[in-house]
Amino acid sequence: MTSASICTIGDEILIGQIVDTNSAMISRALGEAGIRTSRMVSLSDDADDIISTIEKELILNDIVISTGGLGPTKDDITKPALAKLSGSTRMVRNAEQEAIIREILHSRGLDVLDINLMQAMVPDSCEVILNHRGTAPIMVFRFPKERFGHPAALYAMPGVPYETEAALGDVVNDIKQHFSHANIYHRSLMVYGLAESALSKLIEPWEDSLPADIHLAYLPNPLTGVRLRLSCYDSDGSAEARISALIEALKPILGERLYSGQDDSLEATIGRLLKESGLTLSCAESCTGGEIAHLITTVSGSSAYFLGSVTSYAPEIKIKVLGVPAETISKNGIVSSAVAAAMAEGVRDLTGSTFAVATTGWADAYGDEREPAGTVWIAVTGPDGTETSRHSYHNDRKRNIERFSATALDFLRRYIIKYLNR
Amino acid sequence: MTSASICTIGDEILIGQIVDTNSAMISRALGEAGIRTSRMVSLSDDADDIISTIEKELILNDIVISTGGLGPTKDDITKPALAKLSGSTRMVRNAEQEAIIREILHSRGLDVLDINLMQAMVPDSCEVILNHRGTAPIMVFRFPKERFGHPAALYAMPGVPYETEAALGDVVNDIKQHFSHANIYHRSLMVYGLAESALSKLIEPWEDSLPADIHLAYLPNPLTGVRLRLSCYDSDGSAEARISALIEALKPILGERLYSGQDDSLEATIGRLLKESGLTLSCAESCTGGEIAHLITTVSGSSAYFLGSVTSYAPEIKIKVLGVPAETISKNGIVSSAVAAAMAEGVRDLTGSTFAVATTGWADAYGDEREPAGTVWIAVTGPDGTETSRHSYHNDRKRNIERFSATALDFLRRYIIKYLNR
Repeated sequence: MTSASICTIGDEILIGQIVDTNSAMISRALGEAGIRTSRMVSLSDDADDIISTIEKELILNDIVISTGGLGPTKDDITKPALAKLSGSTRMVRNAEQEAIIREILHSRGLDVLDINLMQAMVPDSCEVILNHRGTAPIMVFRFPKERFGHPAALYAMPGVPYETEAALGDVVNDIKQHFSHANIYHRSLMVYGLAESALSKLIEPWEDSLPADIHLAYLPNPLTGVRLRLSCYDSDGSAEARISALIEALKPILGERLYSGQDDSLEATIGRLLKESGLTLSCAESCTGGEIAHLITTVSGSSAYFLGSVTSYAPEIKIKVLGVPAETISKNGIVSSAVAAAMAEGVRDLTGSTFAVATTGWADAYGDEREPAGTVWIAVTGPDGTETSRHSYHNDRKRNIERFSATALDFLRRYIIKYLNR
Repeated sequence: MTSASICTIGDEILIGQIVDTNSAMISRALGEAGIRTSRMVSLSDDADDIISTIEKELILNDIVISTGGLGPTKDDITKPALAKLSGSTRMVRNAEQEAIIREILHSRGLDVLDINLMQAMVPDSCEVILNHRGTAPIMVFRFPKERFGHPAALYAMPGVPYETEAALGDVVNDIKQHFSHANIYHRSLMVYGLAESALSKLIEPWEDSLPADIHLAYLPNPLTGVRLRLSCYDSDGSAEARISALIEALKPILGERLYSGQDDSLEATIGRLLKESGLTLSCAESCTGGEIAHLITTVSGSSAYFLGSVTSYAPEIKIKVLGVPAETISKNGIVSSAVAAAMAEGVRDLTGSTFAVATTGWADAYGDEREPAGTVWIAVTGPDGTETSRHSYHNDRKRNIERFSATALDFLRRYIIKYLNR
């Protein structure tokens, strides 16, 4: 099976100033094309280290994909190192990339500087895949069998994730043309409302009965719950049917906790339900501070069903904009079932939406005399009336906001499903 | 200089299902303690690969910190591999970690399962650092000089970032007790409103005059602008004064584009300005869908100055809640200077805040006859009147939302500074 190593180059990664998101994106694309990522390595902006690490990885793997080290500024030394590794002593201008550089800078209203045009210069030992979103082209170095013991290729990509993403399709197509690729079949199921260990216990008998060649992984995430991933090699095209049958057997065990076999997130699932039914949504947020509205509106096409949201951080806004009665707050406390319900009903009245979801809670490390820190009251309202729910978490501010938001979205999802199945 | 390798273990990283954020967090903490991270490696859930990679890294480095592979579910095989690597054949129960496990599960209202308690079992060859936020303890394996040619240590940490974060201080303290550590001095400056290449050109003369031992890096990020990082070894305690003098010389060149030498983000800078001055803020969002409010409220203590926000996704909400006149929309278009201004003024009236910021734009790949896709109008209002500003980007939906939000925060920051400096 063709194997790849992904090498990210840059001191900014090694000293932890930025998180490497490129490697995950690249390995996902390779996996879909049946190329196995055997290793990911991050190395420093040091020419000798770049050359020796990439050479070592090319001995162990068919392909190396590097990202980073190709920016216009002076801290970048990757290009000369790759020229040396590939035995090139001459740089040539790529006219097509130069045209893209001029176009990009022009569209942004920026001057074309010499350091921008330098980006179109590449070692004469490489082929170029164009970078349509940035200035540095992708350089493809091909090595004959003699060099590393097998035919090998190095794809040097820029480090900006937005640029890497756009060029990745062309890179994978080139790999498919030059290397054999097996088929791995993956299916994911999204589950919300159970911790990893409890989920494992619940599905243990089913898991124990899985055929030996089918691999199950648990991938927990505070914003999306646990992703269950089933995968196997698909040599004869039977994988899809086999895994589908296993999933059908799992569905009744998971029940309503299983929220999707197609969407990646609660907000996408909610969006699909609302779009299909032609119903609408609004929200009123306090402790979640806009995160729920933000998650909902990251889904493309959300303007079809999402009317709007009020983040009422100050109590006066709850009273004035959402119409929460002042005595509801003074009687029950600002973090309470009654206030959450009044907020949801208030924003539904204000916007005329079918459904509304509201949150009020303490995200920080303090609470009041009624509710401790980490507590949230969630309310969902709609044609079937208002339901509320209380949850408690023990995290820092940012993580509590994430948990509160995800739990509210799941509560909303269950309400919508119940309504649609009446 | 003591060097470390960070190894993340898990197929979920290698197949790209999750992004590794632990390595950046760990290397940042090591850097602050003067330990150099020479390499980061991600490897699969394969016992042989785990043993051979960690052994190789322990030959090249003084320390290996591994994360991942220690969850309660069946796909984890790291612990037996580490037992084998360290020559242990006996597992022992750690009573303190077991008590934490019971406490955590109890506080979440969950049953204590056998697979949870198994997490407290560790090879008898290791010392334990307690994991106060999760069930898997940190295992510390120490190796004498004979084993790898130098004294070495392996710290095996859990993979959940929230748990890694909490235990990292204890791990770094243990490293400092057992290994020598140099001092590296870092200072970062946050710059908004210039692309990397234009910034590089602007500061070129200053950069060319930097002493040879002082390293400058450009770290661009769509949400925070460009971070300029200056660093050098600090053998005699002079680094801070030397770098401060260089920064003073850079300040007049950057002008208002330099937004911070202390905060990491525009929202933290705005929060500091508002807190110090006792002034307040609200916002009205359309295309940014709650992201601005979310960013503002991720800052701890934001309830002191942030009153609230209205996300008016539907035009009727702009009219009804924010009081934008219907003819302002029909005459100018929904994405226009006039609508942005009316939104900002509307939310300021509604909340009584000192300042308000508003956005209206097309985040998606469509526009209208007046404004193309990727365009945003931003308005800021306050005691000095209303200012608007138009920006255009050429990205996908998610990235446009990020850019719009960051640009709006920067526009707001400049307005507040102008007001405070009157």
